[in-house]
Amino acid sequence: MAKIPVGVLGATGMVGQNYITLLNDHPWFKVRYVAASPRSAGKKYADAVAGRWQLAETYAPHVGGLVVQDANDVSRAVAAMKRKSCAFVFSALEMGKDETRALEEAYAAAGIPVISNASAHRWTNDVPVLIPEINPHHADIIPLQQKNRGWGRGFIAVKPNCSIQSYMIPLHALVQAGYLVKKLIVTTMQAVSGAGYPGVASLDMIDNIVPYIGGEEEKTENEPLKIFGAIADGIFYNAAFPKISACCNRVPVIDGHTACVSLGFGVKRPSIDEIKEVWSSFKGLPQELNFPMAPEHPVIYREEDNRPQPRKDRDCDKAMAVVVGRLRPCNVLDIRFTALSHNTVRGAAGGGILNAELLRHKGFLN
Amino acid sequence: MAKIPVGVLGATGMVGQNYITLLNDHPWFKVRYVAASPRSAGKKYADAVAGRWQLAETYAPHVGGLVVQDANDVSRAVAAMKRKSCAFVFSALEMGKDETRALEEAYAAAGIPVISNASAHRWTNDVPVLIPEINPHHADIIPLQQKNRGWGRGFIAVKPNCSIQSYMIPLHALVQAGYLVKKLIVTTMQAVSGAGYPGVASLDMIDNIVPYIGGEEEKTENEPLKIFGAIADGIFYNAAFPKISACCNRVPVIDGHTACVSLGFGVKRPSIDEIKEVWSSFKGLPQELNFPMAPEHPVIYREEDNRPQPRKDRDCDKAMAVVVGRLRPCNVLDIRFTALSHNTVRGAAGGGILNAELLRHKGFLN
Amino acid sequence: MAKIPVGVLGATGMVGQNYITLLNDHPWFKVRYVAASPRSAGKKYADAVAGRWQLAETYAPHVGGLVVQDANDVSRAVAAMKRKSCAFVFSALEMGKDETRALEEAYAAAGIPVISNASAHRWTNDVPVLIPEINPHHADIIPLQQKNRGWGRGFIAVKPNCSIQSYMIPLHALVQAGYLVKKLIVTTMQAVSGAGYPGVASLDMIDNIVPYIGGEEEKTENEPLKIFGAIADGIFYNAAFPKISACCNRVPVIDGHTACVSLGFGVKRPSIDEIKEVWSSFKGLPQELNFPMAPEHPVIYREEDNRPQPRKDRDCDKAMAVVVGRLRPCNVLDIRFTALSHNTVRGAAGGGILNAELLRHKGFLN
Amino acid sequence: MAKIPVGVLGATGMVGQNYITLLNDHPWFKVRYVAASPRSAGKKYADAVAGRWQLAETYAPHVGGLVVQDANDVSRAVAAMKRKSCAFVFSALEMGKDETRALEEAYAAAGIPVISNASAHRWTNDVPVLIPEINPHHADIIPLQQKNRGWGRGFIAVKPNCSIQSYMIPLHALVQAGYLVKKLIVTTMQAVSGAGYPGVASLDMIDNIVPYIGGEEEKTENEPLKIFGAIADGIFYNAAFPKISACCNRVPVIDGHTACVSLGFGVKRPSIDEIKEVWSSFKGLPQELNFPMAPEHPVIYREEDNRPQPRKDRDCDKAMAVVVGRLRPCNVLDIRFTALSHNTVRGAAGGGILNAELLRHKGFLN
Repeated sequence: MAKIPVGVLGATGMVGQNYITLLNDHPWFKVRYVAASPRSAGKKYADAVAGRWQLAETYAPHVGGLVVQDANDVSRAVAAMKRKSCAFVFSALEMGKDETRALEEAYAAAGIPVISNASAHRWTNDVPVLIPEINPHHADIIPLQQKNRGWGRGFIAVKPNCSIQSYMIPLHALVQAGYLVKKLIVTTMQAVSGAGYPGVASLDMIDNIVPYIGGEEEKTENEPLKIFGAIADGIFYNAAFPKISACCNRVPVIDGHTACVSLGFGVKRPSIDEIKEVWSSFKGLPQELNFPMAPEHPVIYREEDNRPQPRKDRDCDKAMAVVVGRLRPCNVLDIRFTALSHNTVRGAAGGGILNAELLRHKGFLN
Repeated sequence: MAKIPVGVLGATGMVGQNYITLLNDHPWFKVRYVAASPRSAGKKYADAVAGRWQLAETYAPHVGGLVVQDANDVSRAVAAMKRKSCAFVFSALEMGKDETRALEEAYAAAGIPVISNASAHRWTNDVPVLIPEINPHHADIIPLQQKNRGWGRGFIAVKPNCSIQSYMIPLHALVQAGYLVKKLIVTTMQAVSGAGYPGVASLDMIDNIVPYIGGEEEKTENEPLKIFGAIADGIFYNAAFPKISACCNRVPVIDGHTACVSLGFGVKRPSIDEIKEVWSSFKGLPQELNFPMAPEHPVIYREEDNRPQPRKDRDCDKAMAVVVGRLRPCNVLDIRFTALSHNTVRGAAGGGILNAELLRHKGFLN
Repeated sequence: MAKIPVGVLGATGMVGQNYITLLNDHPWFKVRYVAASPRSAGKKYADAVAGRWQLAETYAPHVGGLVVQDANDVSRAVAAMKRKSCAFVFSALEMGKDETRALEEAYAAAGIPVISNASAHRWTNDVPVLIPEINPHHADIIPLQQKNRGWGRGFIAVKPNCSIQSYMIPLHALVQAGYLVKKLIVTTMQAVSGAGYPGVASLDMIDNIVPYIGGEEEKTENEPLKIFGAIADGIFYNAAFPKISACCNRVPVIDGHTACVSLGFGVKRPSIDEIKEVWSSFKGLPQELNFPMAPEHPVIYREEDNRPQPRKDRDCDKAMAVVVGRLRPCNVLDIRFTALSHNTVRGAAGGGILNAELLRHKGFLN
Repeated sequence: MAKIPVGVLGATGMVGQNYITLLNDHPWFKVRYVAASPRSAGKKYADAVAGRWQLAETYAPHVGGLVVQDANDVSRAVAAMKRKSCAFVFSALEMGKDETRALEEAYAAAGIPVISNASAHRWTNDVPVLIPEINPHHADIIPLQQKNRGWGRGFIAVKPNCSIQSYMIPLHALVQAGYLVKKLIVTTMQAVSGAGYPGVASLDMIDNIVPYIGGEEEKTENEPLKIFGAIADGIFYNAAFPKISACCNRVPVIDGHTACVSLGFGVKRPSIDEIKEVWSSFKGLPQELNFPMAPEHPVIYREEDNRPQPRKDRDCDKAMAVVVGRLRPCNVLDIRFTALSHNTVRGAAGGGILNAELLRHKGFLN
């Protein structure tokens, strides 16, 4: 099978670099188009990222030789599409919300599917926010989105914020097993890579933590309701539960968001052992269909007292698994646990690639 | 007024070093007796701590010249008491719980009041666990303790765990203002100095956090109930509220425990503004009587989004204030806030000294 | 004695904040004029720094109430001088080199002495680069500078780069004792506060060091030669020695630059014990005259194997002392040692204040 | 080809864990014997390391099931050898120097080759200290060692200290190209993993560096002379050059030792470009023979100003390459550069495995 040629918008930024690296050996997709800000446009990718490369792993040689295009100039991507070098794009744009929204729409209108990490379209009525283990059926709104907008092949699909990744799949597994989760209090300890580069100042992260991340708590509290929500009359309706109260902190960790979660069930309450069983046996569509980016076990439970830990557990199962530990009763709600996910892989580029795998499976990328 | 001569047990350890430093210029107390493990006994204090001194501030010259005594040998302290160089001791012993309990009792039985940081006696029925801003009246059990044990002048009084200091005074201020707190969920991010030296390995604290501290959650959940409790029939009865659920994490911070707190009130619920007013105006006995170690404002509220931060706020008001911020409604319980206290000052040696000031005021150290 | 009213240019930046704090209780000087970028101009100082204050200690209340002026508008400072609220200014400007040079000259031309932290004028022929313990006589070029420029009371005096502070006084003490230092190889490990705020990204400082600081090695190699140089024919002539080779690294430390130094003497070589004696007994003019900001001991030698350490030693003696340790023979040059100084105090604002004390003593600030 | 069965002594410690992990998929060797302290003996390896596992990567399933043997009981290894499960051992023993020396000799005397990371035998006259890119011919002393001791198949070969790895191969490449290096001044900034677990206290590594590592400077200065030395009359003679002066610091980095090196040549001095050419083209025996653990390029030069950096460069080329940057003239000696190597891979377990590959190639492990 020939690989599908893909483009990366915002390819020189932190999330873009993660896309490039994760796609180095992807069996379905191959990066053949890179676009970034006008400042980088016209340079070879290798030159554009020289001195700005943040990752230990590097880009594939053929990517280093690609000429960076201006991400604002959709016509370049259209030309690439026509010469079969860009069937769809991953959007890792780092511009303002309004500009991002408009630009992603321009790509979609031009016939180029946009699989986005940006938050701009998460609350657009006909745009699905996907976690393929949870709501793969939300992708089925895409034909309607295309019809609404008068778009042909183009569409927009997005992924949710990185801060919710560490507890959404464990939560979903419980709900799917019949245990309604009504209340959830979560305190996150989030890695600095989530803020991009240069991002968080080292003066704030040496001998210190910062008890606040702008906009993060709102996203953490609201996005799950759309993901757990239903499609009716062609738009999304939020789920009623769980009510979420989030407190988001920045801590001196490179990668890996940790969440301390307390939750309260509805009438039906599982035992600790039942929960562990639910988590251990959980598999979603990506596991059933063996998508390349899918972790074998989306939820990994560790019995040690002192796990999960970011540095030791974040890379587990292609950095796509959620690692959970410390499950115990909560004195106020019902249960309590600590969960971890890799924010720039599962929570960003890896999650985007898994979305693309789902969308290809569903035939939207042909 | 001549200063009262005091001893420090465990004077070479981390908490002991904090006692020594904080007492450098104390207007009421002067360190004239230091004791530690047999390994240090017989050395000058300056020699015993050479290469092991952890703090930026150093000890007073006269302390450097004191000969370290064996803390296990109570008779040395008794001799010191007789020659007027040790009216009472601060216990910063770092031995097993049973040994600590027995040794502290031996000092008390020998007529030497023991003001302790150790956890050994926190659940002893007739031993008060004191935070002078909250339960100074609990000290009134001391004569009964002395009678129970057949002790003369000696007694034991302790302080609670450092992890609860950042939210207990704010909580008490609300309760005192008439707002019963029934439920409390807290996630702490605790500094490494709380584990002593060498304590937490650097391999665990670079690019990492540890989601567990042995025994800490139990202390965090239970000790408040004794502090808020009542004395009846000569023993303590735990308060019924609040029910506390705690999740304690270790983070790469030198000093300063941060707590993210959600709490639920009883029937009567204050507004956000009322709470700020309660906190700003709160003063306890140490403030009314102007104790030397007392902060002017026990609770300091900061309006900035991104405060309190350990490195910037922990030293506020002699490192004895609790700094609170981010007060806002909680979607699950009633309100939510973030609070910070200096774990080795307010949460350890400074808290012990404030206890001593209270006990002297009440006449127990004469 | 009434305090001399002083101004701070760049008062809201990192170095400016240090000036403000260090001058909180200064016996000779009182901050009565603050200026910064147009963005801050017109706001009260307290408002201008809200959310941007980096230090644990805060500003004096009367400074919080000052209205920030536009630093580019010299006429405001002149007006302040006329109403006796700004006898001279500390320059902590954070603009480009050319703009800084021109603006500092404009203040001086307007009759306002400028004591600067900026590097703009370090290589100006008639501007002294002062470390008061080393070259206080270099200040004597000021009347010539004033004459050259046709300035009245105004002049410019600067301090050297923070990276050289940790070894310059130890070096000078040896030279003064008759031991010519001909060669010096130094590797520095520098704190992030030296780069201002936001400065170094946390992604570069967690589990990492950066082996390069732009421009720093050139400053480290060249500035000592002017400081050790001579005035002749009204301009400075660089000293011939020592030849310096510097390698400057950034490490995850908040404050305190550490330097590992190897040096080679001329014909006359002191023994290890002689060097320690030279350092211990060294006193400069600031010590003889007991300037308020002067450390009692400019060089403190520690005998422990594992000192100096930034967190434990940087605050020594008002953070103005250089702490030295690990003196031993070098297998290649003659001797080797490790030295530490506080980069934002001795190396920045504290050094600037000590310069002002020297210049007042010499009558240049009347 | 059937894989050679190998044993790991000290298999539960930090270096032991690295051996286990690096051998997970080794094409020549398979771990079939693990030994550790009596405390772990008798447990399954998986149980013995539970809660103590430090690495992100885990051990192969078959190793988890091995029963840990008492490393002090050589007879167990002999029995394993007889049943073809232990052809030789990697020694990652963490005991005292004298015990290690004696125990390694006992294994060798019992016919089991010992490839060691320990420092105990580095100065034993007939024991080679190997870096396969530099002195593979030193292994030729082994038959003499066996004869001296009356050993049959057993022998001892060791690797040098991790602190020298970052500059030894670059140095050797220059010497081999005809440029004698006479003098070398090096300042290292070493990662905490070099001290094992728990190793360095986090209180020493947050907002701090430690300017001393016990014994490290002596090793750094002396071991290169044996490696560059010659065999004559059946023993090693140290090389006369280079004279080395080392200053070793501990910095808050997990893995990766960085060295800032100044060096002085003899009469013949290469240009900067010649040096880069020498480094880029250098290949040793491991590269020529394509050993599995050998990096393709033992020395990688990076042109960026701000590299090498530990977090970004340590994992380069299987974490076995030395990454060099910042080559420039030195004002005191001749040239200066910064170099980095992964201390627990190239500097410990990976280096040991490369030694084993060399020794197998030379027929000593048959």
